[in-house]
Amino acid sequence: MIRLLVTGGTFDKEYNELAGALAFKKTHVPEMLRLGRCRLDVSIATLMMIDSLDMTAADRARIVEECGRSVESRIVVTHGTDTMVETARALAQAAIADGGKTVVLTGAMVPYAFGSSDGLFNLGSALSFVQVLLPGVYIAMNGRCFTWDQVRKNRESGVFEAL
Amino acid sequence: MIRLLVTGGTFDKEYNELAGALAFKKTHVPEMLRLGRCRLDVSIATLMMIDSLDMTAADRARIVEECGRSVESRIVVTHGTDTMVETARALAQAAIADGGKTVVLTGAMVPYAFGSSDGLFNLGSALSFVQVLLPGVYIAMNGRCFTWDQVRKNRESGVFEAL
Amino acid sequence: MIRLLVTGGTFDKEYNELAGALAFKKTHVPEMLRLGRCRLDVSIATLMMIDSLDMTAADRARIVEECGRSVESRIVVTHGTDTMVETARALAQAAIADGGKTVVLTGAMVPYAFGSSDGLFNLGSALSFVQVLLPGVYIAMNGRCFTWDQVRKNRESGVFEAL
Amino acid sequence: MIRLLVTGGTFDKEYNELAGALAFKKTHVPEMLRLGRCRLDVSIATLMMIDSLDMTAADRARIVEECGRSVESRIVVTHGTDTMVETARALAQAAIADGGKTVVLTGAMVPYAFGSSDGLFNLGSALSFVQVLLPGVYIAMNGRCFTWDQVRKNRESGVFEAL
Repeated sequence: MIRLLVTGGTFDKEYNELAGALAFKKTHVPEMLRLGRCRLDVSIATLMMIDSLDMTAADRARIVEECGRSVESRIVVTHGTDTMVETARALAQAAIADGGKTVVLTGAMVPYAFGSSDGLFNLGSALSFVQVLLPGVYIAMNGRCFTWDQVRKNRESGVFEAL
Repeated sequence: MIRLLVTGGTFDKEYNELAGALAFKKTHVPEMLRLGRCRLDVSIATLMMIDSLDMTAADRARIVEECGRSVESRIVVTHGTDTMVETARALAQAAIADGGKTVVLTGAMVPYAFGSSDGLFNLGSALSFVQVLLPGVYIAMNGRCFTWDQVRKNRESGVFEAL
Repeated sequence: MIRLLVTGGTFDKEYNELAGALAFKKTHVPEMLRLGRCRLDVSIATLMMIDSLDMTAADRARIVEECGRSVESRIVVTHGTDTMVETARALAQAAIADGGKTVVLTGAMVPYAFGSSDGLFNLGSALSFVQVLLPGVYIAMNGRCFTWDQVRKNRESGVFEAL
Repeated sequence: MIRLLVTGGTFDKEYNELAGALAFKKTHVPEMLRLGRCRLDVSIATLMMIDSLDMTAADRARIVEECGRSVESRIVVTHGTDTMVETARALAQAAIADGGKTVVLTGAMVPYAFGSSDGLFNLGSALSFVQVLLPGVYIAMNGRCFTWDQVRKNRESGVFEAL
């Protein structure tokens, strides 16, 4: 069984038509798994629905705590891309892997709701890597997988690249 | 570098509006990789564009041959789901893995062009598994990965399941 | 109030993923009206769900009868494009317009469910023309509106054009 | 021939993936006409690409001027919904209709680029109404058409309704 923790990010941004602005409602992850005909046993929990630029130390502590207390040892976290590396570091510094846990963070550059998202591709990727990688904290983006301390987001290109 | 061999299948079916019927034109795989913001080094070749129910022994021999001569040791094959297991068997019987090759077959239940496909999810999954699995022949569908001799397609549910 | 009679056609074709073939399930028209934020008072009835190439004289008689008995004088009929002109002729020959009725037939070249349909555009067009045209039988396709005896479908281009 | 003047609005908003925000690039109107298999003779000009809340008196004067100088007597204007009524008023006060011109303004509540837009429906509707209505200034939204002084946007529901 895989634990899937939802924290928001571009993955789950929607268009609020009355405000004419981007907003969060509820996560699209269950719909994405249905669309992907995913037959993995996935237990989903929404921890927060925020832009990762708005994520506080307390929010990160909550993610670390939830990963720590998870009975499933394989965990995927959906997360905004801007501070994904920071949260990965917080998880690594909390020694999540020592408990035998494999945590893979993933996200999207385009909201799933906007019809042209990399989210479905990344979700398929993250759920695959998490099944086979050794305990540790990883980031799966752009079809690639990086250990938490070997990656940065290139803000010019929007691409995650090796350090 | 990853080799990606295209053979057609539901993955690449389109709607021909003049005929009012399903048809193959050219593969959507490059567009899907772009949409997925994939930054893997992928070398694509289209071997054929057919329904896997129409696949002959000669077609399978061609797939085996292309996998055998591939300089890349990590290979993804997109394939119709109906006879995917059969092609996987042909690859295994040709001892592809002995050459140190990891081959992952994947496909889709709904054409990518119809906007609600599992193809993007499966492609993300197959490209991830192929990077980390030991030499062998595998099928990646529904978020799961099976060795070639441990899987069948359940034709009632459309789901790939363990034997 | 507008009467909307559904007869199937490409408009409502879907992809049946177990059969790997095109099929009809139920009409997408209500969903399309919702998506179009349509606020017209529309009363929908599904008369049949068939390819217009399979439409029999009895089927056409049924459409004529339903238009005749409709209490609403403004009627849109969704219809396969291949024999749309034939049904329009049947309606005209039954002197539908004499009862003060405006009937607009419309359809699509690409199924709505395949994400790139002209159906939504045509539906907006047909529902607009039907509100303002004099009693008669018309075909609304490609942004244009033709009286029933001034139009043919060009099977090479898939476009409706004036005679 | 129909003149189609683009001014931006929700119709043309896109998601900028590097900024993670909504933005304007270029208009989607030509693509929408292609998707709708529109075969009307439409001459498109982009006057501006702005949110209608940012539209100044000078911008409105420009729209009035372009409608006035248009050699085509049938004109569709795509426009943000928030101040669409205001621009319609400016056109009416400039006595556009006296020159024999029929102007129909339309827009969308959801960006076309976000895959679930009312824009395609509204565009089909506006292009249909403009062909048959008498000279005047109109707003086509939600499948309905209003004369410029008989309509308001209900900001709670996002729906255009009769005064």
